[in-house]
Amino acid sequence: MKLKLLAAAFILSATGANAQNDSLTMRKLSDNILLEGTCYENLRVLCKQVGHRLSGSPQAAKAVVWGQKAMEAAGADKVWLQPVDVPHWVRGKERLSLRFQGEKSFKDVKVLSIGNTVGTDGKVLEAPVVIVKSIEDFKKLQKEEVKGKIIFFNYRFRQDLVNTFEGYGDAGKYRWLAPNMAAAQGAVGVIIRSVSTGADDEPHTGSMRYADTVKPIPAVAIGNHTADMLEKECVKGSVTAQIESDCKMLGTVPSYNVIGEIRGSEYPDKIVLVGGHLDSWDIGEGAHDDGAGCVQSIEVIRALKAAGIRPKYTVRAVLFMNEENGLKGGLAYADSAKANNETHILAIETDAGGFSPRGFSLEMKPKEREHILQYKKLFAPYGIHDFDQVHGGADISPLQKQGVPVGGLIPDAQRYFDLHHTNADVFEQVNHRELKMGAVALTQLVYLVSKYGMR
Amino acid sequence: MKLKLLAAAFILSATGANAQNDSLTMRKLSDNILLEGTCYENLRVLCKQVGHRLSGSPQAAKAVVWGQKAMEAAGADKVWLQPVDVPHWVRGKERLSLRFQGEKSFKDVKVLSIGNTVGTDGKVLEAPVVIVKSIEDFKKLQKEEVKGKIIFFNYRFRQDLVNTFEGYGDAGKYRWLAPNMAAAQGAVGVIIRSVSTGADDEPHTGSMRYADTVKPIPAVAIGNHTADMLEKECVKGSVTAQIESDCKMLGTVPSYNVIGEIRGSEYPDKIVLVGGHLDSWDIGEGAHDDGAGCVQSIEVIRALKAAGIRPKYTVRAVLFMNEENGLKGGLAYADSAKANNETHILAIETDAGGFSPRGFSLEMKPKEREHILQYKKLFAPYGIHDFDQVHGGADISPLQKQGVPVGGLIPDAQRYFDLHHTNADVFEQVNHRELKMGAVALTQLVYLVSKYGMR
Repeated sequence: MKLKLLAAAFILSATGANAQNDSLTMRKLSDNILLEGTCYENLRVLCKQVGHRLSGSPQAAKAVVWGQKAMEAAGADKVWLQPVDVPHWVRGKERLSLRFQGEKSFKDVKVLSIGNTVGTDGKVLEAPVVIVKSIEDFKKLQKEEVKGKIIFFNYRFRQDLVNTFEGYGDAGKYRWLAPNMAAAQGAVGVIIRSVSTGADDEPHTGSMRYADTVKPIPAVAIGNHTADMLEKECVKGSVTAQIESDCKMLGTVPSYNVIGEIRGSEYPDKIVLVGGHLDSWDIGEGAHDDGAGCVQSIEVIRALKAAGIRPKYTVRAVLFMNEENGLKGGLAYADSAKANNETHILAIETDAGGFSPRGFSLEMKPKEREHILQYKKLFAPYGIHDFDQVHGGADISPLQKQGVPVGGLIPDAQRYFDLHHTNADVFEQVNHRELKMGAVALTQLVYLVSKYGMR
Repeated sequence: MKLKLLAAAFILSATGANAQNDSLTMRKLSDNILLEGTCYENLRVLCKQVGHRLSGSPQAAKAVVWGQKAMEAAGADKVWLQPVDVPHWVRGKERLSLRFQGEKSFKDVKVLSIGNTVGTDGKVLEAPVVIVKSIEDFKKLQKEEVKGKIIFFNYRFRQDLVNTFEGYGDAGKYRWLAPNMAAAQGAVGVIIRSVSTGADDEPHTGSMRYADTVKPIPAVAIGNHTADMLEKECVKGSVTAQIESDCKMLGTVPSYNVIGEIRGSEYPDKIVLVGGHLDSWDIGEGAHDDGAGCVQSIEVIRALKAAGIRPKYTVRAVLFMNEENGLKGGLAYADSAKANNETHILAIETDAGGFSPRGFSLEMKPKEREHILQYKKLFAPYGIHDFDQVHGGADISPLQKQGVPVGGLIPDAQRYFDLHHTNADVFEQVNHRELKMGAVALTQLVYLVSKYGMR
């Protein structure tokens, strides 16, 4: 412990000469964003004038135009669109109806199809419901118990986990795996209890992908209250469900990542990237996920420019397309970076909600991590204390695979999975000061790394 | 620095033997509250079935009954009501209307009288408006410029301050001081820009008290949008205001603090207190301020009981009456403690909103602070990292004056002063997980101190 502390002290003293200046500049950036920041107003426009914007949709195309203009208004030296082909999935109409033992008619319940799912091709899919508590439970079923059935995966989001992202990782597999597991055993449909911390009945959509080995079956999600009710009815007696939906994948359409940058004064070819994703699910307004990340990334450019800071390294803000159901934007960006021999010294994603920031996750070599950690004390006045988590972000994961050090802004996420991928993820759920504080932290980190590099 | 670290290491090793057990018990308490906690449901009942509950109102009486029942349901060994006489202020009807230069008629604007203010006794108070930016600005006015006027104190909440409580301390004096300063110079009324971080038009009420030396004048608060508009109109030309209100102080009525406790097994006469305040302003639902603190305090009792923990020191939860406009409950409690020779080893208040907890403020002797700090690492898994702030809470300030070590739960407060003392402070603004995480931190601290004491 003592040695580690001495090492930390050494690093601090090595940069100590500049620490006071940097502290003042960080305050200046904070003041500017809190008093003159435009990210909240930008988010209002994105949410209220563009709205939700699933990849391939007309709104996604509108969002690209919005992003380009916002990046220009922020004062980026250069703004451009990077072509990327994206899947175009559509929801259309959807219905889940349940008939309980002893009842004659079906009752409609609140439902959202899981993203990328197939629909029922104009037919009504009707089948008995089989409830399972977990994947382990499901595996105990005989094939004939599954065949022809609609399987209800009634797995609860683990509310005991303090870190809700841990709970999301745990419960999220029910969205990704359950449809494939059930299809492989001959089920005709899947209902999941939403991947949700909500004390409410909001269904949560989200991505899934069919394995090449299975015949796709429709998959839908229900909110916690409906799931509680269905659970009770399944205990009482037999339940039959009807699913009817127009969901389908329409193929691939051209779209864009939106990119803006401030050219570095000394190392223009070395890039510090900050980004979020421009697409959202086709419900709500994609305010926290990830409108917040987009407007914060743009704010980094605006605030550096407003403070008259010319970074030594190039600072690039990227609004990635298609994080939600394909990651094509992140892949296209990394491919292009490789093809053009671009060097990214750090890539930071902000895609965990526009809530009060608490730290940065870091996925990089120990020496690179140490480099970031030397700044830890400078962040303390801003409530940024958590540098222990190890991951980056989905859009920058293809860069990470190329060896780029990556990180992510960590906001307080206690309420994120109440809202994530629901109709309730709207502008009104984002607080102006929390959103701005996130932009402050991002701008401060980008400022430091674009001044000192990563060595 | 080195010496301090060695001291910390010594303290840690001194309790190291128990650290693992305590860590497990703290996790057990956390699991219990996150999975089985009743604070969120208790808050729903308080907000929706009792509603707002200003001291002396029928709802405040109803809240006392609610508090007693909730404390009993939590499993307290003993529950009782402590009599306290409280002021009974009523708002009645209120109106602020403005007439701008060149206009013939007055327009009503959104307004809230400041708590404890006088009204206009059935008359219409009409006078020219004089705008000032700050107290310093006001002091520059000649007496004849103030006499007969309604003074508009247009001071903005400092959004550049990261800690919104610092901003509240700064801007709050306009609610407390402005009416007295203006009255002393012969003004007939006061309008203040609300003590608000809100990017909206919510007026914020709150307490004030007339100095004995001034003739009371009516004081009202307007929201930020209305204040922006009034500021513009004052620059353009003359503005006249009308104030009409039934506000008045009706005198003193009997009420109660609600108290529940778990008797200590070894030191029953030494008390660890946790509390919030049961009264609220007469608008909204007092959800964050301070319904949250009440239900969290009750949860401490419930969770310790549910976990089968018998504390060595007595644990007492107190719902104080009349924090908002008199502090009579806190004063009565401290008087009673003194009269009965009660020993409080620690008093912790939770009255800063039901948001995600980030730390504990501590107002105590250095040795007592050191004692609490030895637990710091145990709190890290719960996002509790800030132990640097120095203050307790209003209700426990009379105990603090008697030498009791005090502290306060520190939640993330970025959005608190958007809601504080407004109609928007309702149950729906409180997140179930954030509220529970606050209860977890409180329960864990109370667990540790009621096991080890403060030495």
